[in-house]
Amino acid sequence: MALCVKEIILASTSPRRREILSQIGVPFRVQSVPIDESLPENSISSLEFFKSWPQELASRKALAVSHLEQATPVLGFDTLVFSSSGILGKPKNADEALTMLQQLNGQTHTVISGVALALGGKILGAKTAETSVTFRKLSDRELAEYVQSGEPLDKAGAYGIQGLGAKLVESIGGCYYNVVGLPIAKTLDLLKECEVLYVRNK
Amino acid sequence: MALCVKEIILASTSPRRREILSQIGVPFRVQSVPIDESLPENSISSLEFFKSWPQELASRKALAVSHLEQATPVLGFDTLVFSSSGILGKPKNADEALTMLQQLNGQTHTVISGVALALGGKILGAKTAETSVTFRKLSDRELAEYVQSGEPLDKAGAYGIQGLGAKLVESIGGCYYNVVGLPIAKTLDLLKECEVLYVRNK
Repeated sequence: MALCVKEIILASTSPRRREILSQIGVPFRVQSVPIDESLPENSISSLEFFKSWPQELASRKALAVSHLEQATPVLGFDTLVFSSSGILGKPKNADEALTMLQQLNGQTHTVISGVALALGGKILGAKTAETSVTFRKLSDRELAEYVQSGEPLDKAGAYGIQGLGAKLVESIGGCYYNVVGLPIAKTLDLLKECEVLYVRNK
Repeated sequence: MALCVKEIILASTSPRRREILSQIGVPFRVQSVPIDESLPENSISSLEFFKSWPQELASRKALAVSHLEQATPVLGFDTLVFSSSGILGKPKNADEALTMLQQLNGQTHTVISGVALALGGKILGAKTAETSVTFRKLSDRELAEYVQSGEPLDKAGAYGIQGLGAKLVESIGGCYYNVVGLPIAKTLDLLKECEVLYVRNK
């Protein structure tokens, strides 16, 4: 049975996710509960496991809020950047940012987002989106100049494709907005499949 | 010999191209001269010809301004949307917009941009960027709702990937910003190859 709501809860404080939901006219409010995001210790982790991890974290985020707000659908998200040498988080400082960018320079890496929809303390459904990102081949001077802009410091993988970091990127394959942090097509597909309808913001 | 300039001329009045150049920190001013954009009559036109047309128009736009402003490098751009049935321009009205969107719905089409750099009334170089865009499969009601937003009317192909139209798109292959109207990677490669340097905007 379809559920028609006036708003959805976004279980994320990310300003970029807020912007994207606004852009596509989904009415929402933000409510976020901290969850444990640490990878299980001592697990012999395959690539398949890592690829499923964003969806697992997205589900935890959605559930944590859904337990408090039973009557409203909750969307949770998580985005991870995978290079050939593992998961790239947010760099701790400018040196670490430069090292990450040198690793991505001229190469193709993968950005994976999970999206999960919860209602009444239960997961209705979840999806994973995967986008490949190929960097241009830049000089160390050009990378250092980008680090100096300060933009890399709060970004997983040390770049923001929606900002000055756009100049680092040669091409992508998949959903662009997944790289920004909210996979639009997968999110709308999920809402449709779970029959959660909303009155569009004017 | 490298040329270091304080600004570049953008031979386009498109607000989206202005935004993208600002985003990547290229200092510029806008100056545009109308050119003849009509396809040659009676030409037996191959796909290869059509694919080269955006670069030809970008060169004409850059040259027209460069003749007036000999001392400053000029960037010209043109973007065309190619569906299986030909070039899609800007829809004349809501009905035409809906017809275009129905044609793109659930299919993959191609967006081609040309970028050209002129100096002293001569073309220094030009490039073509090609991005494939795959639409989600939407209902006629969803497409009509998007047309009602008014967004399609000033957009080639009747959608804006950077706006509400993002909800129509499943995935892309290539440069995202090419679809918005300014292929960032090709533009920066062109400036670099032609040894046109600029002092970055702070």
